[in-house]
Amino acid sequence: MANDVYVIGVDMIKFGKFPDRTVPSLGAEAALLALDDAGLTIQDMQALYCGNLMEANAMVGQRVLQEIGQTGIPVVNCANACATGATAFREAWIAIKAGIYDVVLAVGVEKMAGAGLLGGGRKRKGIPTEGLLGSGTMPAVFGEAGMEHSRKYGTTFEQFAKVSVKNHHHSTLNPKARYQIETPLDEVMGAEMIAYPNTKLMCSVNVDGSAAAVLCSEEKMRQLGGSRAVKVTASALTSDRWTERDLTMPDVSTCTREAAKAAYEMAGCGPEDLDLVELHDCFATAEILHYENLGLCGDGEAGRMINEGEAQLGGRIPVNVSGGLLSKGHPLGATGIANVYEVCTQLRGEAGARQVDDARIGLTHVIGLGSACAIHVFEKQ
Amino acid sequence: MANDVYVIGVDMIKFGKFPDRTVPSLGAEAALLALDDAGLTIQDMQALYCGNLMEANAMVGQRVLQEIGQTGIPVVNCANACATGATAFREAWIAIKAGIYDVVLAVGVEKMAGAGLLGGGRKRKGIPTEGLLGSGTMPAVFGEAGMEHSRKYGTTFEQFAKVSVKNHHHSTLNPKARYQIETPLDEVMGAEMIAYPNTKLMCSVNVDGSAAAVLCSEEKMRQLGGSRAVKVTASALTSDRWTERDLTMPDVSTCTREAAKAAYEMAGCGPEDLDLVELHDCFATAEILHYENLGLCGDGEAGRMINEGEAQLGGRIPVNVSGGLLSKGHPLGATGIANVYEVCTQLRGEAGARQVDDARIGLTHVIGLGSACAIHVFEKQ
Repeated sequence: MANDVYVIGVDMIKFGKFPDRTVPSLGAEAALLALDDAGLTIQDMQALYCGNLMEANAMVGQRVLQEIGQTGIPVVNCANACATGATAFREAWIAIKAGIYDVVLAVGVEKMAGAGLLGGGRKRKGIPTEGLLGSGTMPAVFGEAGMEHSRKYGTTFEQFAKVSVKNHHHSTLNPKARYQIETPLDEVMGAEMIAYPNTKLMCSVNVDGSAAAVLCSEEKMRQLGGSRAVKVTASALTSDRWTERDLTMPDVSTCTREAAKAAYEMAGCGPEDLDLVELHDCFATAEILHYENLGLCGDGEAGRMINEGEAQLGGRIPVNVSGGLLSKGHPLGATGIANVYEVCTQLRGEAGARQVDDARIGLTHVIGLGSACAIHVFEKQ
Repeated sequence: MANDVYVIGVDMIKFGKFPDRTVPSLGAEAALLALDDAGLTIQDMQALYCGNLMEANAMVGQRVLQEIGQTGIPVVNCANACATGATAFREAWIAIKAGIYDVVLAVGVEKMAGAGLLGGGRKRKGIPTEGLLGSGTMPAVFGEAGMEHSRKYGTTFEQFAKVSVKNHHHSTLNPKARYQIETPLDEVMGAEMIAYPNTKLMCSVNVDGSAAAVLCSEEKMRQLGGSRAVKVTASALTSDRWTERDLTMPDVSTCTREAAKAAYEMAGCGPEDLDLVELHDCFATAEILHYENLGLCGDGEAGRMINEGEAQLGGRIPVNVSGGLLSKGHPLGATGIANVYEVCTQLRGEAGARQVDDARIGLTHVIGLGSACAIHVFEKQ
């Protein structure tokens, strides 16, 4: 495969609630921020890849372009559940790899109002839990996945809860996260139970948000003098195989392990080479599973890993330094590009109070049930 | 750009009404037909690109895989209005060009029940027309576009109607078209007026349908002994620039002309080299415009072209030999791949009663308002 691909501009809006804003206007805001970051304008872009789930049939990418200047460039709208933004990013990456384009804009955007069933959040009230809705809900799926880990390896409620304490702490250092509130263990464990062992504060936060990235070829990067450019060293996408297991219970681990294997192979590195990871902590239990799925520790060691603070900023392998989905927030279509923003910002050494020392290689991971798992690896120049 | 790309399997279901079938089951049926045509199975596929508009947020590609066998392969769901299927096909083409995959399945599928406002059809009853719904409806947009052509070049109601007579005649020769009914000029002109000058029989037919294609690299094609393989010599995608005109009236022509220019350049051919064209006759007026937009005749000559039978099977440049959207039917997400089926079937010399003599080069064109225009060019081996 020819053509190395670089991120030369990337940004996100501060995640929050914007009832008076449209999806395209939120997408356009992130796009303009990312273009500014690259020192380019929409006229320089050769294509737009847009990720949005809730309005996936409504030409969101084209409407983003209407907000910031129609140039006649190709627009591709992608949808892939929680991997929607990452899929748009990946398709942009593929198009540059193919030599079809030199410089491409990828935008992810979502308004989550009315999407209460998908996750959690501090202000959520009266959300039905597993008992009411049956086993098909997201909280139920990830509650059960945590319980399975618990039965197998003795992982405790407290260990799962510590994931949320960590990510909430991280987000106090990230001004673009939804929340900047330290959330101690007793508060996390004492919050309303959604689907055991995940309390309300162990569920991802439903917010509105957007993120965007400018990707380009190596040649274009050199033309532009991309001293802040970050190389995309791997992209992998997989889907699930429900038929191998209980049909009522999707397997979130197998497709992550397969994507991780493919990504490490493509990047020519292993989990031991990573300086930070932004992984899909849609629930606290999910983060525990993915430590092992991504090879950050051995199978059954995730409880120990969180106990010993290894995933904390300053630890062996900081995970979700941005605050993660649990506290930065999880606007579905935006998430896959927002974590590209976090990793690139870290690799550029521009992450301020939450900077990971000497960060050189970072990994992003998202997984959408239904299903799609996307992993990208990034390396500093 | 490296890596030539070939279609080694392609098929569609007979378009119709399938109230008891799900979208994934219709998609799976076309996928299995295309795999059979290629002599391959789902286990041979390295990725699935799926085009569906109406359920674009609901993981249609993954649900197609659930129907025919989950293999863990990457799935990308694309949506781009009427260019949805063509966009999925193009993304598959790009991925092979990039060398990411060697062999990929592209599926387009749509159920159009309840989508009455988008088009026409023989059985349609009580559809509100422009006067009731204002100028933003599809019939209004393409009625007005036809009237503009009429004012500029003197194109007549009868000329527009002849497009529909031609395409209905073509579809009598295509067993997979929705209708096989000769429809004489007086019947077309005398049908219920939807938005002048398009009567009900000059509007595309809302049907359920699916189509699929297997794309592969040159190396893979040679391995498989692809004597029936068809080369994809160009793919172009553009979007609109409404700001250049009246904001209430999208310009369907500019983006088609830009896509055509790019496609001819990439394919190294011109309109004079084409043996057949499947273009986006969502309304009879649209076909007239696109003769000129695609360079099949000079500006203002489309009326003469239809009068002289040049676009008829056996004419100078047969257009919509499949029956087109006007009589084969227009299941949005499927259309862009269904016209790939028609062109490849013709280039393979397998089109039976509707075979275009010595067909060597064919072009497909779709345009979705909102907007996306996709053009592909195909050449016989």
